Amino acid sequence: MQRKPVLLVVSGPSGAGKDSLVDELRRLEPELAYSVSATTRARRPGEVDGVHYHFLNRENFQRRLSAGEFIESREYAGNFYGTPRRFVESALDSGRDIVMKPEVNGAAAIKTAYPETVMVFLRPPSASVLAERLERRSTENADAIAERLAIAHDEAERLAAYDYVVVNDVFDAALLQLHAILIAERTKVCRVL
Amino acid sequence: MQRKPVLLVVSGPSGAGKDSLVDELRRLEPELAYSVSATTRARRPGEVDGVHYHFLNRENFQRRLSAGEFIESREYAGNFYGTPRRFVESALDSGRDIVMKPEVNGAAAIKTAYPETVMVFLRPPSASVLAERLERRSTENADAIAERLAIAHDEAERLAAYDYVVVNDVFDAALLQLHAILIAERTKVCRVL
Repeated sequence: MQRKPVLLVVSGPSGAGKDSLVDELRRLEPELAYSVSATTRARRPGEVDGVHYHFLNRENFQRRLSAGEFIESREYAGNFYGTPRRFVESALDSGRDIVMKPEVNGAAAIKTAYPETVMVFLRPPSASVLAERLERRSTENADAIAERLAIAHDEAERLAAYDYVVVNDVFDAALLQLHAILIAERTKVCRVL
Repeated sequence: MQRKPVLLVVSGPSGAGKDSLVDELRRLEPELAYSVSATTRARRPGEVDGVHYHFLNRENFQRRLSAGEFIESREYAGNFYGTPRRFVESALDSGRDIVMKPEVNGAAAIKTAYPETVMVFLRPPSASVLAERLERRSTENADAIAERLAIAHDEAERLAAYDYVVVNDVFDAALLQLHAILIAERTKVCRVL
């Protein structure tokens, strides 16, 4: 059955475990295309150009940015990061499913550029026990509770832009869920041609 | 993480293999509630009341129908069939996921009663090769092609009411997809409380 490809975005706060989960998903699904980000930051030992990042100098990055070659880009700690448009487009054009793991602002920009993006929010283990903690720790002072609720509120607002939320409490359980999301999305009626 | 339960409807034309797929899904997910239909037809050898159907006489069925105890009901070959409301409501109230396998009209009625229903269309193997056949059989006469296209058109219209379409070409692959749909739907942001 022919179908449109799935554009899967896995995002969430740092420390949620995106890298290892997406690595393992790609091992389970070798046909899945993976979008490598471009960056101006220096290459670290062990990093391979084109595998971990496309390493560009600032001039090159700026030229590509001006030419509209990035779906989204941002500056962080004095370096630029961007998602090259061409790879994503050519994967989608050839009907390949594709996975990306941008940070949260990048994820929102990708969703804007490709409204059919499947958005998965990966929640780190610590946040998942927040509600339970709030209920059980009746000894906690009012300020601490207010702060926690503010964090929960921010997350709830951010979640509205996502389709799925996977809690990375147990790696294998989170992987099963992430894989299930990909398999299920492939069978969506809206993707059947 | 607390969440709203999934109401999963697996429907499709007869011969699609709903019974064996849903049986196997329930084996994989023993906590999944299963809605047993009520019927006025005679019990066949091997059928157990309350397991295969709730067997009711016509009077009893009509009384329950008048009392609004069925989510949907229909007459087929001189017998009545219905989906008891109470079991579905109590499963959902207690947070249990539930699976049902009504025929296509029943599925539409359930979706109307419970708009959050997850609708899976199970397509029998023969239909899945339709498009391929149409392309390859250039020798086919115009009438035969028109008839096939009409069938495909009907199915396409019906599909609009569904969220997912699973093709039952290979049983294990269809089961994997159906199971993935259930697992993925549990992680939907709209279900997170």
